[in-house]
Amino acid sequence: MIQDPLSSTFAALADPTRRAILERLLEGEASVGELAEPFAMTVRAISKHVAVLEAAGLVVRGRDAQRRPSRIRAEPLAAVDHWLETYRGLWNARFDRLNERLKTKEKHDDSNKGKRVRRE
Amino acid sequence: MIQDPLSSTFAALADPTRRAILERLLEGEASVGELAEPFAMTVRAISKHVAVLEAAGLVVRGRDAQRRPSRIRAEPLAAVDHWLETYRGLWNARFDRLNERLKTKEKHDDSNKGKRVRRE
Repeated sequence: MIQDPLSSTFAALADPTRRAILERLLEGEASVGELAEPFAMTVRAISKHVAVLEAAGLVVRGRDAQRRPSRIRAEPLAAVDHWLETYRGLWNARFDRLNERLKTKEKHDDSNKGKRVRRE
Repeated sequence: MIQDPLSSTFAALADPTRRAILERLLEGEASVGELAEPFAMTVRAISKHVAVLEAAGLVVRGRDAQRRPSRIRAEPLAAVDHWLETYRGLWNARFDRLNERLKTKEKHDDSNKGKRVRRE
């Protein structure tokens, strides 16, 4: 099945092991053996996950025949970030509304404090 | 298969039709019939896509037995935005480096311009 790039990226990210591999690669490139270390998984299983990440362009692998170290690629993640842009208003608007209510409440509290002081 | 929430969200987003449905819901709630209109798909097929979005918490459906209108939910998308935070440095750092190179180049061009003026 041919997928559009964004669908491939999302599908590759829909797995906690693959997300953990990406997080590990933030620290620097690593061979499949090194990537497998923290997981209770065979090198073969990790290798399959790396292949999915590679197919989605989230990872590139070096040419060194022995190690073939994986390196993270930012571009597909930047595309997700760009895609999210359209939706960011949803939670920012909600945040703005909460903030507005908080400010109104604080103003109300302040004016009540004023009244109390005047009454004393 | 029980999935963690972030994996469910990414899996639900890994389909262009489901992403188009979400984009339509940004304009306001809609029934499955209304959602199906712009697609060359049966209402039944769209209904399945809406069910995937609903299972991932990206959509909630109203109680009106006839229309059961779908509404977008921001929370899972906000969670993706939060997850991306760790990676944002990757492309921002790259952008900073490009910007730095541009500035250096401009400074270089300016000093060359200066030389030319002095020569005239």
